[in-house]
Amino acid sequence: MRYDIAIIGTGPAGLEAAITAKVRNKTVALYGNRLLSNKMQVVDHPILNYLGLPSITGKQMAEAFTRQLAELGVEITEQKVTSVYAMGDYYGLQLGNGEMAEATTVILASGVVAGKPYPGEERFLGRGVSYCATCDAPLYKGKTVAVIGGSSEEEAEADFLGEVCAKVYYLPLYKDEPSFTHENIEIVKEKPLEILGKMKANALKTDQREINVDCVFILRAAVFPGQLVPGLASQGNAVQVDLMMKTNLPGLFAAGDITGQPYQYIKAAGQGNVAALSAVSYIDALKRANA
Amino acid sequence: MRYDIAIIGTGPAGLEAAITAKVRNKTVALYGNRLLSNKMQVVDHPILNYLGLPSITGKQMAEAFTRQLAELGVEITEQKVTSVYAMGDYYGLQLGNGEMAEATTVILASGVVAGKPYPGEERFLGRGVSYCATCDAPLYKGKTVAVIGGSSEEEAEADFLGEVCAKVYYLPLYKDEPSFTHENIEIVKEKPLEILGKMKANALKTDQREINVDCVFILRAAVFPGQLVPGLASQGNAVQVDLMMKTNLPGLFAAGDITGQPYQYIKAAGQGNVAALSAVSYIDALKRANA
Repeated sequence: MRYDIAIIGTGPAGLEAAITAKVRNKTVALYGNRLLSNKMQVVDHPILNYLGLPSITGKQMAEAFTRQLAELGVEITEQKVTSVYAMGDYYGLQLGNGEMAEATTVILASGVVAGKPYPGEERFLGRGVSYCATCDAPLYKGKTVAVIGGSSEEEAEADFLGEVCAKVYYLPLYKDEPSFTHENIEIVKEKPLEILGKMKANALKTDQREINVDCVFILRAAVFPGQLVPGLASQGNAVQVDLMMKTNLPGLFAAGDITGQPYQYIKAAGQGNVAALSAVSYIDALKRANA
Repeated sequence: MRYDIAIIGTGPAGLEAAITAKVRNKTVALYGNRLLSNKMQVVDHPILNYLGLPSITGKQMAEAFTRQLAELGVEITEQKVTSVYAMGDYYGLQLGNGEMAEATTVILASGVVAGKPYPGEERFLGRGVSYCATCDAPLYKGKTVAVIGGSSEEEAEADFLGEVCAKVYYLPLYKDEPSFTHENIEIVKEKPLEILGKMKANALKTDQREINVDCVFILRAAVFPGQLVPGLASQGNAVQVDLMMKTNLPGLFAAGDITGQPYQYIKAAGQGNVAALSAVSYIDALKRANA
């Protein structure tokens, strides 16, 4: 089926977009973490300035949001979206499990990506740089790969690569000790600096050496917007939007931290609401044009 | 005293701006109705898409907001703001009781004004057209005036004019029967159409006749933004803002319905948050420049 609205991200922007779309009777696919955004879960000091929820922790807030989703029958699909392609009058979404989904409109609400792409990352994307182990592991059967893991949640993906590849170097960007079931996964506590190569990537440069590999898998919680959607206008890690949350691509909207500072829950929710209503208007105009 | 931030309006935009400003340790003057926005009070169907407050009535929402204001020690000053003047590095606010207030920054969050200005309204403003009975009544002592009353709340203002003026024509824009203590107030159930005059206004044209008057008092819940703040860029009843809620005037921000559609609570709150943080940045930059 083709959804009316695909929403990427389960922070306040994505959730508000989903409930507004649902109230407006649109079909919604909501992709993200079922525990809602990680950032929200770890906030244990009270959030004081979310109007209507006085002095609440991130965890309590996530619980309140979850209850509301359940009441409205909004479901979260626990899949990463690794790419979004404009197909004319709809969008194709590449999912982490290798499947494709279709939607008339897309709302990007996947949050802000800390830092910058590594040098070489954009140049070699699709040629020895990948964001999705499940999608691309078969291409590197019996080969040597490196995995840059943004959080411990990425360890399952790396473990799967261990099953398929001859050798996996795992570089955690976090402090907890990673654990794997496959012994061909070597934990490397070095800082990744650059992806090297010629026509294709062939090495990962760290602060200590160059590791020869056939592919570097970069597994972050979120992908840089310009890499997620080819042709999307962005500045660094912020998608360019107008007041109606429209991007430069018709039918594609963005909301929340992905649109830039300030990074605030209530601002994200407000933008999610506007993005959903803009998507609804876009769909309705499309229907009238095709009638 | 000069406040850091003056906020006009007590709907979700103004309230969120106030709590965010308070959390950021700024001094705040919040002007509006203590019962919060009238619109919110009359909503008795459930509001479904305010993230975090599932299926809530306007009244319950207003109660939740009121509790949060109390917890943070934010107080509402029940005064209309009838004009805002740019004074260089601060703003002067003309209050309904005739007093002036000062603030380094101003956030306009007074909601949307239904309809359009009457023909002649903008032309004769300050010359036979007034938005503030308390401020301008002394100018029309012993004279004849008309009052266009947007809601029954304006009747007290009209009654005060009855005390000062020789004759008051009161044109209610609502259905409830107005009541006054002064007998020189004549209730006129005609539709106001236009304000006539030459150098100054001299008559109110209705759908039935022309009434000769020295002044027409137009008492709406909110004032058109371009009339509230001389020099403010607006289109019809919407103030022009960018994504950071900046208007064309430095230090003046806007949020909520006053910035245009969609008219939604959570969007208004989100914009109020951004407006407050932009005001905080503006104040801090000003302090650094003057240090």
